[in-house]
Amino acid sequence: MSLELSRKALSVKPSSTLTITAKANELRAAGEDVVGFAAGEPDFPTPAHICEAAKKAIDDGFTKYTPASGTAELKKAISEKFKRVNGISYAPSQIIISNGGKHSLTNTFEALLNYGDEVIIPAPYWLSYPEIVKLAGGVPVIIRAEKGASYKVTAEQIEAACTEKTKALVLNSPNNPTGMIYTKEELQAIAEVAIRKNFYVVSDEIYENLYYMDGKNASIASLGEEIYNRTITVNGLAKSYAMTGWRIGYLGAPADIAKCISSIQSHQTSNPNSIAQKAALAAIEGDQQCVDDMNKAFDERRQYMYKRVCDTPHISCLEPKGAFYVFVDMSEIIGMKYKGREITCAADMAEILIADYCVAIVPCADFGFADHFRMSYAISVEKIKKGMDRIEQFISALED
Amino acid sequence: MSLELSRKALSVKPSSTLTITAKANELRAAGEDVVGFAAGEPDFPTPAHICEAAKKAIDDGFTKYTPASGTAELKKAISEKFKRVNGISYAPSQIIISNGGKHSLTNTFEALLNYGDEVIIPAPYWLSYPEIVKLAGGVPVIIRAEKGASYKVTAEQIEAACTEKTKALVLNSPNNPTGMIYTKEELQAIAEVAIRKNFYVVSDEIYENLYYMDGKNASIASLGEEIYNRTITVNGLAKSYAMTGWRIGYLGAPADIAKCISSIQSHQTSNPNSIAQKAALAAIEGDQQCVDDMNKAFDERRQYMYKRVCDTPHISCLEPKGAFYVFVDMSEIIGMKYKGREITCAADMAEILIADYCVAIVPCADFGFADHFRMSYAISVEKIKKGMDRIEQFISALED
Repeated sequence: MSLELSRKALSVKPSSTLTITAKANELRAAGEDVVGFAAGEPDFPTPAHICEAAKKAIDDGFTKYTPASGTAELKKAISEKFKRVNGISYAPSQIIISNGGKHSLTNTFEALLNYGDEVIIPAPYWLSYPEIVKLAGGVPVIIRAEKGASYKVTAEQIEAACTEKTKALVLNSPNNPTGMIYTKEELQAIAEVAIRKNFYVVSDEIYENLYYMDGKNASIASLGEEIYNRTITVNGLAKSYAMTGWRIGYLGAPADIAKCISSIQSHQTSNPNSIAQKAALAAIEGDQQCVDDMNKAFDERRQYMYKRVCDTPHISCLEPKGAFYVFVDMSEIIGMKYKGREITCAADMAEILIADYCVAIVPCADFGFADHFRMSYAISVEKIKKGMDRIEQFISALED
Repeated sequence: MSLELSRKALSVKPSSTLTITAKANELRAAGEDVVGFAAGEPDFPTPAHICEAAKKAIDDGFTKYTPASGTAELKKAISEKFKRVNGISYAPSQIIISNGGKHSLTNTFEALLNYGDEVIIPAPYWLSYPEIVKLAGGVPVIIRAEKGASYKVTAEQIEAACTEKTKALVLNSPNNPTGMIYTKEELQAIAEVAIRKNFYVVSDEIYENLYYMDGKNASIASLGEEIYNRTITVNGLAKSYAMTGWRIGYLGAPADIAKCISSIQSHQTSNPNSIAQKAALAAIEGDQQCVDDMNKAFDERRQYMYKRVCDTPHISCLEPKGAFYVFVDMSEIIGMKYKGREITCAADMAEILIADYCVAIVPCADFGFADHFRMSYAISVEKIKKGMDRIEQFISALED
């Protein structure tokens, strides 16, 4: 008998992106003119027709338990969306609706992993992947995608990381934090490795609608039956529909995995919020003009921010092609001094920027790249301008 | 490399109460006149002032991320409620708001358990406890509370079940499925064992407001500093405020545990639905008359159903004192025949009742008592009468 807490839980750090957002919010509440490049959420309000559907659900008394894995009508709508948008056939029974994308990922790894199973995660990675894997009893195996390779890993790199314990690979395209996109050909090569080596692919496609190139995002599960049988496709409403606070995520999976996840969710949380499920239905079935309008605004901001970073000395980035982040390389600044203090990593720079310039950025050590930071362009061009001006001031104050 | 799923996840069965409710709903949708004694949710609508607060939150654009462990205002309100109602001091930082009571329990066991740790669970138990413990890597250790002991376990029984691996005990008072309540004296004796043997107590108090005796429910964490330091108090809005679909649960815990859970939740799910948090705030801070009104109705139904069960041959129950369930002993029926079919357990009876009488009950094998079933009185007296009449018909059709 002892009061020792779970060792794996204690090994997990709180999400630093949420911490930085909270800090920026605190300063803002104290009256400071903060420019927040940290938040991973659209600045737009949830579209009106979605809000109206939620209010109608409340008025209709749709406030009781729903089936634990989500309502039949929402599963049907998502099933049709998977077919129409992603070219993937998931029957409604293969779909689980959860409390956001994170929850869908948590459910997935709970269903897949035995103690000690390895999960390959390409860096830069969204900081919660390794923590979610650890909490599910797995071991994250990080492989590094270099800037010269557009921050993307190759099929060869993945194959080289495989061991007897490899259970799954995490894919995230469009990518947080890099904004990079895996092409269909790249996914095909990765799929071949997954099939040959016999592991699962967890494909996080939460940013699929935030795509600024020609064509549309490719889903790995659409590339043939063998990879379909090994893929769990995770998605959610938060980013595409400005619905971050509503917490509706979903996944499609082979039938046996979906059944296992459904069972897990029936005990661990039950159904996601009934009203938010009605809102999600309105989002998916409704007019998609709102998505296009938001994307157009994001694209304008993307181009502006990309240009500003390119024009600023000592920092650089690749052109982001999706999501709403610019992934900035600040390695040139390492070793330089600000008011006598040596900058050793992006976290030092972030600390100074928030303290002296009221600018919030996300240093990316927790994303696997200590000499990079992430800036979100889910804020207005005017604010981006103000924030970039301040970053320029900071950089011009640096000394060798 | 293999595609084998998680063994612990595969060992978990889907929640059978939700399954039965779903089956009753199907029959009802097909036009059948079903009497549903199965559902674990109030039949009342969510009170109007709570719904209005939610609609205002939507209108105010309160649809973004909140802090991952819940809003500051809701934590403050819950902190004050813990002090006022339960006599427990939890600072707002010791409170985590989650997606329902199940989620709070899941978070708790994720934070407490190392692989193989034992959790003592008194039977009859709410069916998800053992499954949640297994999913968190723990081992449920079931101890049996007999009918003659009012379905309550004693401190001695708990102590006898302790081993070197005992990490926690689950307490649930008022109890699902029995409706029994642990007195302050009984809790004091249990607390002494927890302190002496040094394990945690997870106290699930979700039914605290559904209490039909004089006085109010006792919280074990209020009984002194040493037991406070070992207790996680779990609660939620669903049962007291007819808010089952909204999915807001919460817990109070010692600071180190709350911090650990906050970190887990920041990665696994983030904040619960922002709008539901505003609704929960209105529920906790608003007029409590709605709770009293619902309780009065439940109490009337409780007395009626208790009398009907007592008056029906071959089944019996103890008078429930809390929650909204009657826990019915049908052991006398075992071995009797219905249309030539031998009844071997409560599940056989439930199968016949839904098929031939359109009455849904919950057989309690999954609650640890295969010769008992659970009937909810969270439905109108008129429906209870109709259902009990049908059960009487079934019983009069039995042959020795």
